[in-house]
Amino acid sequence: MASNYFGEIFRFTTFGESHGPAIGCVIDGVPAGIDFDEALIQSDLDKRKPGQSKFTTQRQEGDKVEILSGIFEGKTLGSPICAIIRNTDQRSHDYGEIKNSFRPNHADYTYDKKYGIRDYRGGGRSSARETASRVIAGSIAKMIIKKIHDTTLDIRASVVQIGEKSVNKSMINFDYVYKNPLYIGDESSLDEMSSYLDSIRKSGNSVGAMIEINVSDMPVGLGEPIYHKLDSEIAKGMMSINAVKAVEIGSGFDLASKLGSQAVDSMRKKDDKIAFEANNSGGILGGISSGQDLICRIAIKPTSSILIPSNTIDKDGNNTSISTKGRHDPCVGLRAVPVAEAMMACIIADLSLRNKLSQL
Amino acid sequence: MASNYFGEIFRFTTFGESHGPAIGCVIDGVPAGIDFDEALIQSDLDKRKPGQSKFTTQRQEGDKVEILSGIFEGKTLGSPICAIIRNTDQRSHDYGEIKNSFRPNHADYTYDKKYGIRDYRGGGRSSARETASRVIAGSIAKMIIKKIHDTTLDIRASVVQIGEKSVNKSMINFDYVYKNPLYIGDESSLDEMSSYLDSIRKSGNSVGAMIEINVSDMPVGLGEPIYHKLDSEIAKGMMSINAVKAVEIGSGFDLASKLGSQAVDSMRKKDDKIAFEANNSGGILGGISSGQDLICRIAIKPTSSILIPSNTIDKDGNNTSISTKGRHDPCVGLRAVPVAEAMMACIIADLSLRNKLSQL
Amino acid sequence: MASNYFGEIFRFTTFGESHGPAIGCVIDGVPAGIDFDEALIQSDLDKRKPGQSKFTTQRQEGDKVEILSGIFEGKTLGSPICAIIRNTDQRSHDYGEIKNSFRPNHADYTYDKKYGIRDYRGGGRSSARETASRVIAGSIAKMIIKKIHDTTLDIRASVVQIGEKSVNKSMINFDYVYKNPLYIGDESSLDEMSSYLDSIRKSGNSVGAMIEINVSDMPVGLGEPIYHKLDSEIAKGMMSINAVKAVEIGSGFDLASKLGSQAVDSMRKKDDKIAFEANNSGGILGGISSGQDLICRIAIKPTSSILIPSNTIDKDGNNTSISTKGRHDPCVGLRAVPVAEAMMACIIADLSLRNKLSQL
Amino acid sequence: MASNYFGEIFRFTTFGESHGPAIGCVIDGVPAGIDFDEALIQSDLDKRKPGQSKFTTQRQEGDKVEILSGIFEGKTLGSPICAIIRNTDQRSHDYGEIKNSFRPNHADYTYDKKYGIRDYRGGGRSSARETASRVIAGSIAKMIIKKIHDTTLDIRASVVQIGEKSVNKSMINFDYVYKNPLYIGDESSLDEMSSYLDSIRKSGNSVGAMIEINVSDMPVGLGEPIYHKLDSEIAKGMMSINAVKAVEIGSGFDLASKLGSQAVDSMRKKDDKIAFEANNSGGILGGISSGQDLICRIAIKPTSSILIPSNTIDKDGNNTSISTKGRHDPCVGLRAVPVAEAMMACIIADLSLRNKLSQL
Repeated sequence: MASNYFGEIFRFTTFGESHGPAIGCVIDGVPAGIDFDEALIQSDLDKRKPGQSKFTTQRQEGDKVEILSGIFEGKTLGSPICAIIRNTDQRSHDYGEIKNSFRPNHADYTYDKKYGIRDYRGGGRSSARETASRVIAGSIAKMIIKKIHDTTLDIRASVVQIGEKSVNKSMINFDYVYKNPLYIGDESSLDEMSSYLDSIRKSGNSVGAMIEINVSDMPVGLGEPIYHKLDSEIAKGMMSINAVKAVEIGSGFDLASKLGSQAVDSMRKKDDKIAFEANNSGGILGGISSGQDLICRIAIKPTSSILIPSNTIDKDGNNTSISTKGRHDPCVGLRAVPVAEAMMACIIADLSLRNKLSQL
Repeated sequence: MASNYFGEIFRFTTFGESHGPAIGCVIDGVPAGIDFDEALIQSDLDKRKPGQSKFTTQRQEGDKVEILSGIFEGKTLGSPICAIIRNTDQRSHDYGEIKNSFRPNHADYTYDKKYGIRDYRGGGRSSARETASRVIAGSIAKMIIKKIHDTTLDIRASVVQIGEKSVNKSMINFDYVYKNPLYIGDESSLDEMSSYLDSIRKSGNSVGAMIEINVSDMPVGLGEPIYHKLDSEIAKGMMSINAVKAVEIGSGFDLASKLGSQAVDSMRKKDDKIAFEANNSGGILGGISSGQDLICRIAIKPTSSILIPSNTIDKDGNNTSISTKGRHDPCVGLRAVPVAEAMMACIIADLSLRNKLSQL
Repeated sequence: MASNYFGEIFRFTTFGESHGPAIGCVIDGVPAGIDFDEALIQSDLDKRKPGQSKFTTQRQEGDKVEILSGIFEGKTLGSPICAIIRNTDQRSHDYGEIKNSFRPNHADYTYDKKYGIRDYRGGGRSSARETASRVIAGSIAKMIIKKIHDTTLDIRASVVQIGEKSVNKSMINFDYVYKNPLYIGDESSLDEMSSYLDSIRKSGNSVGAMIEINVSDMPVGLGEPIYHKLDSEIAKGMMSINAVKAVEIGSGFDLASKLGSQAVDSMRKKDDKIAFEANNSGGILGGISSGQDLICRIAIKPTSSILIPSNTIDKDGNNTSISTKGRHDPCVGLRAVPVAEAMMACIIADLSLRNKLSQL
Repeated sequence: MASNYFGEIFRFTTFGESHGPAIGCVIDGVPAGIDFDEALIQSDLDKRKPGQSKFTTQRQEGDKVEILSGIFEGKTLGSPICAIIRNTDQRSHDYGEIKNSFRPNHADYTYDKKYGIRDYRGGGRSSARETASRVIAGSIAKMIIKKIHDTTLDIRASVVQIGEKSVNKSMINFDYVYKNPLYIGDESSLDEMSSYLDSIRKSGNSVGAMIEINVSDMPVGLGEPIYHKLDSEIAKGMMSINAVKAVEIGSGFDLASKLGSQAVDSMRKKDDKIAFEANNSGGILGGISSGQDLICRIAIKPTSSILIPSNTIDKDGNNTSISTKGRHDPCVGLRAVPVAEAMMACIIADLSLRNKLSQL
């Protein structure tokens, strides 16, 4: 059944297989009269584009967006916006091994069992290529957020851990994130982390990563109890990104070992404003944004395609082994940074619109 | 807007404030002809009922379920099932402090800002009392699961960590979980953890917890790519439970520090069956169940209501402090065990029904 | 799958079988802070209540509404409102004939085939008793409409035709509708129509009816193109009422025989206001309300339960015949008047809320 | 909010403005493994294509469909199918009058008020050009229907009335419908109706029409009570077609004047099959298909664009008049025949999928 959509009011549906004619999205629920910034979309897509360093896959994706509908004289019409990206790298490959064997940790086996048919070319629908479609939705979400909120609300993410190496969190400068191939915010960690990742890459292996997303100047009131809490929407959205296997808000898993007295985000009035004295809750109370910074972390598993052979089975159920040939992507987590930002933008845009109906 | 529902095909909506006339749920989407086991509902509700030990709140909730619709001659009709529980503990209290001040880490402040009105009696809608409604939905979900799957699919959860104390995971026996007040599965840890929690209780403090949920004999194919992946549905559902702030699937956050070669869930044919040699993915590949055991962990923050005073503000924005009076609940995480099981049952029932439409 | 709900933002779900413990509704999506007028609900329910004249079924439905949630200190909380009505007329009947045979034109045969099980007592879920639940939702919708719109928006319906007898439309006075047992607005037609209907009743027969719904002072802008046009929402809602088999907007079916020049609703500026010179479109252009009066008509089929025997089959597929025993309802269309008003109120409330998101 | 979609399980979303780069649809919810018949789509689109006679608009729409996703090796993948049609007739026109004045009976005024912005070129989103997108969805729906139902289920529509002229219903031959420019099924009426319509066309006027849709060999059980009854889904879908202002099922409005004894669709067992002795209900009982032929009629208003000037106002609220220049379309109802068939196919496909979940 219909399941390729996200959001209730601001609802986007993505489509497209990795090696089909095109990928794209349709966004239904964009209010009319929003200034449309097509350059922002292309700029956001470029952040996600692979092939920009030795740490990301070398596929040449032109990733040129084409807007098919919903815009007139530079503004949104209130009708659906369809945007597509043609798949340019559709050369005829020999997919023999991928076609007949299930790559471990990939969607190959489960898609085959669920659907009885599978587009094996580059992962088809399950390819991370799908995330380009969300980046488009995220850019349009940002245009809505800008219109609704007068604050300096800013959604920013960065890689905070690659395998055994973590950045110094106190050194994160978000302006640096898109200026380095590791998408980290701590320049002082670049050399060490680069060397570490390069050695993994050379060994044909891969590694996991952690990303932290931070939203500043959140308005109070976003999130819909009980089953569409802000926490729930974030968890759902982040887990939908390829290879993400964990999500936490605020102090997250650390809260399991804390005492209540250690976890209190007490409140004070300061200079006629409400100030919180801690942020264990990550900016969410009772599923609703409190006005504090929103803080969320996600873990991305190591790239499943590695040069090291793994045991697997083929379509006929026979034992075999498989490994990736040629160049590979040593850490899929890196490029998830702009994707996580885009998902967060979509969530905030959707919940901001929903919140207009909380009171009359 | 409508947000108090969960699920697409098997969709339940909950209603009710903690100290209003009743709480309950309506489940729309239950197929006809399912054997209705009302005793199971009451049995599941009893597992969640508070006041059964010194470690849970002393509120006397009768929690007697009444079925208003949808059942005829012991079977489901295919029409909505409405079930309610009368709130019996509605004595007139003096809510003075709670009424006028915002309890830190509670939903008081955010509900007030979002809605401009708040039922301050016992937390109103944001009370954990709401979770009784989900337990009812979960019991009915289990009846559907039993009908659909011939396997020995079993959904079982237990507390694996309370503050600084963890169970020995290799010792977990799920049959023990509802026989001890800590909802743990490792009997050998009971004494130490009980003493630890009791000392926290006596000090007027509280503590966080971690729960692990395990589903055995999962069928292959549950989960709807891309935005309704099994991971996404679980993350959304678990985060909707009061006080949950983190969710992970399989190896979860540990995957951030792992190499690709360490995270491989390789596959082998053994005795004409498909066997996985590891389960880092927690039973989900590409958002679809792989047939392995489903493994998920959640973190629950410490009870926010403690006897130790905290800084806060009152409704007029003035600084004040607040603390809970009388008995308190030292670890809200404990009673989340049957609730997490119920949510998982609802997710599996919903995705099992959806999966009937994947192929024709 | 879930199908017992109506509306997107203002969404109500109804539940309950005719002879089960209770019927009711849960309304999810009511904004907070609306003045709650419980007396209006009871007053609206009383308009629909049967047994008030010889022209409606003699079932004694107390129809006392009980509100279980969502209200606090006289205002809506923004949480779901659950309202129930206990079924008081649950005497043990001999349902023999209804149990084993399919009443023609009823839902008996199709429910049996679709669900494999059927609550044969009084029609179960397919009974017109379900419409009481919608009347509750409609009353709450009216409270929202009152809050949103400063206009004198008024939703009023009346019976305009019973069998071969039509009222004089130019004589309709809506204040008269609930003062006569035929729910007509033209007092001058009462005697003739009453005699006509009484003779049908005495002959054990029944007859169809037509209702016209009129909404004055509609705001401009309600209705969501393309698939949630105001026309579409009305058609869907009206057709969901038991026994309704036709819906038309404005000049409706007459438009099939008109010339374009005859159907023009031309526009003029008059006294600084926009005035339309005709209303063939029934107040809707391009699926969006134009500000003209909304006009809609529905046809209700004759009561299917009559004292005259009809051919039918029994559960085993054998030929038999069936007739209603005792008193019957000669024209089900009459009591559809408050139900049609309620549905229209729900549609307008929902679309009014949706329209808040058209522009920012 | 999101409103450009139709269907629950088989859900399509359309996008595109009349004179923007492209129109199209995304269909989410197509089961995997369906044989994909691209030629059927083009064939169905060709039936709807304008410019094929003097009775339809002369716009040259190439209407060549391009499939962007969801198909692999001739079968559906279970992922979304996106199909687009480039707008080739995008010549730069002088839109002066349409740009500044509101055409009566069009969506111009209401779109302007609702959205504050309007793509005035050819009606933009409100143009009947949108219906080409639904025809695509309808063709794909037919592929699903073919797979699910073993019956000879056939969805066929024809024009039964143009203004004052009606066909002889007993003479309808559906094979003739797409062989004549009036989309009628009664060849004997062609000459008279053609002359009639041609004289209207020459006078610069237009006329309304009625279409009857017939579905043979319907399965029993389609339709979801209470609010997604088959009648409701049909009414909603048909009313969403441009210019449709009335819908009736079976005997429809005639039922208002019938006696109960005249409206009985009695049942008999004949040759071990269940046979109905009449079909006043149009094949639907209690909102669920009965297995009889489904019968539905819709009224389409006269083309609003005529050569005869009408009073209207301009954007500044001043009185003016407007008329269409050049060629016009004397009866928009004609081309609604393939569109109505497509909508019916979408409804039946969606409800057929939903019905798989009624019983387990």
